[in-house]
Amino acid sequence: MAPSGKKGILERLAAGEVVIGDGGFVFALEKRGYVKAGPWTPEAAAEHPEAVRQLHREFLRAGANVMQTFTFYASDDKLENRGNQLGFTGAQINEAACDLAREVANEGDGLVAGGVCQTPSYLSCKSETEVKAIFKKQLDVFVKKDVDFLIAEYFEHVEEAEWAVQTLKETGKPVAASMCIGPDGDMHGVTPGDCAVRLVKAGAEIVGINCHFDPMTCVKTVKMMKDAVEKAGLKAHYMVQPLAFHTPDCSCQGFIDLPEFPFGLEPRILTRWDMHQYAREAYNVGIRFIGGCCGFEPYHIRAVAEELATERGCLPAASEKHGLWGAGLEMHTKPWVRARARRDYWEGLKPASGRPLCPSMASPDGWGVTKGHADLMQQKEATTQEQLKPLFEKAKTH
Amino acid sequence: MAPSGKKGILERLAAGEVVIGDGGFVFALEKRGYVKAGPWTPEAAAEHPEAVRQLHREFLRAGANVMQTFTFYASDDKLENRGNQLGFTGAQINEAACDLAREVANEGDGLVAGGVCQTPSYLSCKSETEVKAIFKKQLDVFVKKDVDFLIAEYFEHVEEAEWAVQTLKETGKPVAASMCIGPDGDMHGVTPGDCAVRLVKAGAEIVGINCHFDPMTCVKTVKMMKDAVEKAGLKAHYMVQPLAFHTPDCSCQGFIDLPEFPFGLEPRILTRWDMHQYAREAYNVGIRFIGGCCGFEPYHIRAVAEELATERGCLPAASEKHGLWGAGLEMHTKPWVRARARRDYWEGLKPASGRPLCPSMASPDGWGVTKGHADLMQQKEATTQEQLKPLFEKAKTH
Amino acid sequence: MAPSGKKGILERLAAGEVVIGDGGFVFALEKRGYVKAGPWTPEAAAEHPEAVRQLHREFLRAGANVMQTFTFYASDDKLENRGNQLGFTGAQINEAACDLAREVANEGDGLVAGGVCQTPSYLSCKSETEVKAIFKKQLDVFVKKDVDFLIAEYFEHVEEAEWAVQTLKETGKPVAASMCIGPDGDMHGVTPGDCAVRLVKAGAEIVGINCHFDPMTCVKTVKMMKDAVEKAGLKAHYMVQPLAFHTPDCSCQGFIDLPEFPFGLEPRILTRWDMHQYAREAYNVGIRFIGGCCGFEPYHIRAVAEELATERGCLPAASEKHGLWGAGLEMHTKPWVRARARRDYWEGLKPASGRPLCPSMASPDGWGVTKGHADLMQQKEATTQEQLKPLFEKAKTH
Amino acid sequence: MAPSGKKGILERLAAGEVVIGDGGFVFALEKRGYVKAGPWTPEAAAEHPEAVRQLHREFLRAGANVMQTFTFYASDDKLENRGNQLGFTGAQINEAACDLAREVANEGDGLVAGGVCQTPSYLSCKSETEVKAIFKKQLDVFVKKDVDFLIAEYFEHVEEAEWAVQTLKETGKPVAASMCIGPDGDMHGVTPGDCAVRLVKAGAEIVGINCHFDPMTCVKTVKMMKDAVEKAGLKAHYMVQPLAFHTPDCSCQGFIDLPEFPFGLEPRILTRWDMHQYAREAYNVGIRFIGGCCGFEPYHIRAVAEELATERGCLPAASEKHGLWGAGLEMHTKPWVRARARRDYWEGLKPASGRPLCPSMASPDGWGVTKGHADLMQQKEATTQEQLKPLFEKAKTH
Repeated sequence: MAPSGKKGILERLAAGEVVIGDGGFVFALEKRGYVKAGPWTPEAAAEHPEAVRQLHREFLRAGANVMQTFTFYASDDKLENRGNQLGFTGAQINEAACDLAREVANEGDGLVAGGVCQTPSYLSCKSETEVKAIFKKQLDVFVKKDVDFLIAEYFEHVEEAEWAVQTLKETGKPVAASMCIGPDGDMHGVTPGDCAVRLVKAGAEIVGINCHFDPMTCVKTVKMMKDAVEKAGLKAHYMVQPLAFHTPDCSCQGFIDLPEFPFGLEPRILTRWDMHQYAREAYNVGIRFIGGCCGFEPYHIRAVAEELATERGCLPAASEKHGLWGAGLEMHTKPWVRARARRDYWEGLKPASGRPLCPSMASPDGWGVTKGHADLMQQKEATTQEQLKPLFEKAKTH
Repeated sequence: MAPSGKKGILERLAAGEVVIGDGGFVFALEKRGYVKAGPWTPEAAAEHPEAVRQLHREFLRAGANVMQTFTFYASDDKLENRGNQLGFTGAQINEAACDLAREVANEGDGLVAGGVCQTPSYLSCKSETEVKAIFKKQLDVFVKKDVDFLIAEYFEHVEEAEWAVQTLKETGKPVAASMCIGPDGDMHGVTPGDCAVRLVKAGAEIVGINCHFDPMTCVKTVKMMKDAVEKAGLKAHYMVQPLAFHTPDCSCQGFIDLPEFPFGLEPRILTRWDMHQYAREAYNVGIRFIGGCCGFEPYHIRAVAEELATERGCLPAASEKHGLWGAGLEMHTKPWVRARARRDYWEGLKPASGRPLCPSMASPDGWGVTKGHADLMQQKEATTQEQLKPLFEKAKTH
Repeated sequence: MAPSGKKGILERLAAGEVVIGDGGFVFALEKRGYVKAGPWTPEAAAEHPEAVRQLHREFLRAGANVMQTFTFYASDDKLENRGNQLGFTGAQINEAACDLAREVANEGDGLVAGGVCQTPSYLSCKSETEVKAIFKKQLDVFVKKDVDFLIAEYFEHVEEAEWAVQTLKETGKPVAASMCIGPDGDMHGVTPGDCAVRLVKAGAEIVGINCHFDPMTCVKTVKMMKDAVEKAGLKAHYMVQPLAFHTPDCSCQGFIDLPEFPFGLEPRILTRWDMHQYAREAYNVGIRFIGGCCGFEPYHIRAVAEELATERGCLPAASEKHGLWGAGLEMHTKPWVRARARRDYWEGLKPASGRPLCPSMASPDGWGVTKGHADLMQQKEATTQEQLKPLFEKAKTH
Repeated sequence: MAPSGKKGILERLAAGEVVIGDGGFVFALEKRGYVKAGPWTPEAAAEHPEAVRQLHREFLRAGANVMQTFTFYASDDKLENRGNQLGFTGAQINEAACDLAREVANEGDGLVAGGVCQTPSYLSCKSETEVKAIFKKQLDVFVKKDVDFLIAEYFEHVEEAEWAVQTLKETGKPVAASMCIGPDGDMHGVTPGDCAVRLVKAGAEIVGINCHFDPMTCVKTVKMMKDAVEKAGLKAHYMVQPLAFHTPDCSCQGFIDLPEFPFGLEPRILTRWDMHQYAREAYNVGIRFIGGCCGFEPYHIRAVAEELATERGCLPAASEKHGLWGAGLEMHTKPWVRARARRDYWEGLKPASGRPLCPSMASPDGWGVTKGHADLMQQKEATTQEQLKPLFEKAKTH
């Protein structure tokens, strides 16, 4: 039983239920005008609560069972260099976020999850004690507000994720741990499997992946985690909260390194039909906590819920405003639009970009200039026309 | 002076001010879970006012000067076959929409525009009297709620648009008329220029284009209208409220006929930088009422407002949460992401689709099978291998 | 009767026969190592006759009825600045080219066409007398070698084409005139229709288009010529010899201005199935002299001949080595490759580029910087962040 | 010393020389009208010797040091079911091919390589003795015609390749062994490394890869071979003769399974600049026998020779007709075309396909329907609208 008096996250997962997560707030609220790209801090929870509340509500209507507190990058060390400008303390922001999540969760069957993520302190090589103290400050709010469970998410380094899990475990609440890595593993090359085993050993009851990569890549990475955890004779539940962007061209740091990040990602946005495939694939590999991260809008979560409607035994409230597989088009006046009111049409569609001057894939930044490449360029330069002039003379007299 | 006591729409335009419109509500609210694709009716104004209010507010923050009542497809004949299910009368929906628009407009410098659009009555060949009666019912609400001005929009047939303008004029309020056509003109082939002249003669003070085509196509079409109006020795103001989708491959009915309509349009969504280009181009051809339609999210309108900030003398409220031209990235930790905090990077970016199996353009439905094409197919069939067998024998003995 | 004793070109066209042209020699021989891109001169006729003879033979086998002398850019003024290096006089090259074309034409039912094209003299504003004298020098060879008919091709200026036709007419041989323009007309904006009328009035019995644009664009342009000639009450036959490259993105100077010209055009090469469509379309609009220009390889001409096999009453010799519509795949071991041995498979195929980092269309060079564009850029620069700083302050205190 | 009295293949490689191969004959001659796609047999050697001779000569001019006999699929078992139609015996074809290769090789510094490839006998499970007897019949011709060395190429099964090497070794001539596999290994999953080790142990002095994949994939695969051979403490030389088609989307059987094979591959053709990259990369990983297979035209081989001109100390004869890195464009009249006469322009070019309706990658045939996929489809079907109807009712009353 969760603090809210509802069936808790672990009970649901243990019973084999599908738990649907919400989508990422920073990207959605950036588009709505409440989050600034670059800092990506969540002061809107205190500054514009009506906007945050509304987004929570839309995800609830779309089928989300988890209302994650809008506390991404809300650690004191992250907020510090902007705090004065904002006019809110870290505690104020974290408390406001908890209240909003709880308010909307109470409108339905939602659970409130308090979230922490990677810290500047760790990246600037602060000690374990110092980093854990940072997590502790957010946790104090989560305990005070009695959230239903905790999520440590968006970690690129398994070590910091372990520290987070260890700190979160002290609250006695269920702990989920989610890393923002792909199949190549964390920033030190620790494989997804080894990351998962370490996180489970640190006490996480749920492990998985969020952000940085597209749904299919994230599902594949969670599968690697699951295989390793099972091989190690351990037990865990699994979660996945990927991007709503196609990223077939990403290297190990994911979409951050794409030239389009963060202001030109539109052509990569997944359709609702892509989401059906994602939800099915995640379910098939055994993941039961299925949500979203950056790029997800409420209709994306609704598509996940609709794909898994049979398994969950219900459709979300927002399906009142959605014909399954395009059924709403049946009443269209043009016969060729009516002809689109069927599943195989949308499943088979290869949507055009409308951008004939743009490519389909990009070369990620930051990884292009390797040693081998630099050598190659140098060798190329050596083969100048100047150098080849005598050879030309030879060729002519050949 | 508008009923709201603010400077009216015609005074603003006459003074050379840039007036920024809002974005389309049906598409934005469909993604948020409050509008059903297919019927596209606006019962959410009465059913879920908090969602509609929030979207109005986001557009206001983004810089919009006009709050258009969410009354698209809210004519009685359109609502009729769904009315009982919805549990709201047409009047209730129209009134609720007026109240929401006014409430948010009062939070800033916004004007309220009551909107009507094309009717099923016209398409089913009802008489001029009957069609005008339909418009009249919505107008009664607009007059009662004392909106600041009126927009007749989304007309494919200039005749029906004329009828709408004539009816709207009776209220004494300023009237804008906007058609959803492209450079090829209305569904009977009346050119954009002729449409505009007829609408001005019918009494519209503002004429222009909304929906169905991408921004540059709409601007080009309004330019054709402007040239014709001026050539006819008439005077008018001009407006444009295009799609936020790239539609280089559309034929005369616009994006409705694209295979991706309406559930696979994601790869076509314009970036904020595309919007800068649009706003500048619209301004350059002399359009001063510049807004958006389907696909526009608040950040798209903000981009329009930021591009025209010098001309307008202000930035919108939501620019607090946006570094101009990506300036917010300056504080990023990775040098190659910091390097993106500049205008020429984003202006020059050709964003990849992340969809290597998808094309860049599509063949519109509904127009592919013409007489000529059918003939061609028949002739092709005539050249069967069977028929050619004797020729093969000949070739061999050649 | 042509000098070769065969049915002449005009007799064939008058009888309604389809006459198939050959492909462009400069591009094909550049790939084989005998023509230099840039100068594009045909000294190979004298220097490497075996290579030129072989290419003629391949086109003959592919179904070509016309062997065009390899005399493109073989006017004395063009050869002049390279002549000494080459070690051949213009007369030697032109004579060798005639001999090779005749030799191969005699191996089948081919006619020899002597060809002239636009001159540097015209471009450098030489007089009509001087330009005609240039044509005359090549003509002297053609008369001496008694070619079957003459083609004046690849003219961007109708005036020069008229001079060419007038000069060619003096020989008494049939004259074809072909311009390298698209639907926008010649370099002075003379429409295709007006060009055609002037050329027919100058004495050309056959008029049409070659090079610079893709097949469908060229066919469309010839159609414009045909309509104008008929409207003027004149009579003519029509020819088309397009590129074998897709050029949907070309502006008025055609593929020269594409960034890929001339060394990156590979992804644009037409398939044999594209050629079937071209041949049918050309036939349908009433063109009866159907060939190719740059990019055409023998198999492209064979596809034209196969598409029109019924109309011509024969398949070409090279069809011995080609199963119609992929029929040769019927004996493949893998069932999914055998499944490709059918017409609708190849007609429906949308071939992938295998280049995910490349776009589908390009922006032509040389036309991008127009006055309007320059103005736009300047205005954009004016909206700098610097300028907007005070507005930001305002926004914050809003 | 090779039989031709020239420095032999092994002496050249041992001295660290770069040896350039020729391109594939079946694809090049198919386009020229002398080979039938499907059977792909080389009867043209006897039937149309002038065409085969000319292609040899073009590759020689382009820089090739090896004239491979046009004996692909010329084993008796392959020719059998077509032999009567062709009117040539296998011996006649093989002998004619040897004579043509020798004739052209003697025009320059070329070596003649007799080639055998995989047999229908092996695929239909004939015994080792029977398969070796098939190779033996071709070898008898090669010995009689005294070719300079032997190549066993285009093997998908390492076992058959071993049998070929063992048979070839009996002649006493140097033996090269080349498989048509990618990084995933042969059709039984034997890794490229294990294949190479087995072939070296069987007696091959040169091992490598030809056909089926694009240049970079083939180079990568040869690198895997080289690493394994060196790890096993063995010694060998390395060769690579890839496709001239981009195949980023191929699965383990290579381009055969692409929907475009073999009649829609045009958009995938490599540019000459792609070939520069290939040649450099092959050289960098230590491959010294560098040539081509299907899709290579003479200008592709010339590009390889030009890239390695410094290493080889010479340019090929055909470079007389080619300005390095586009230098021939320097004399163009239009300034924007002259601006292309430089290396970085062509190295940086991302060539457009001119095909906006086509994707950049394809899904290979023959591998799409796996067990997992079929399961997935079935599950999807289970989630029908019918089934979900009660859930809808529930949602509405929610």
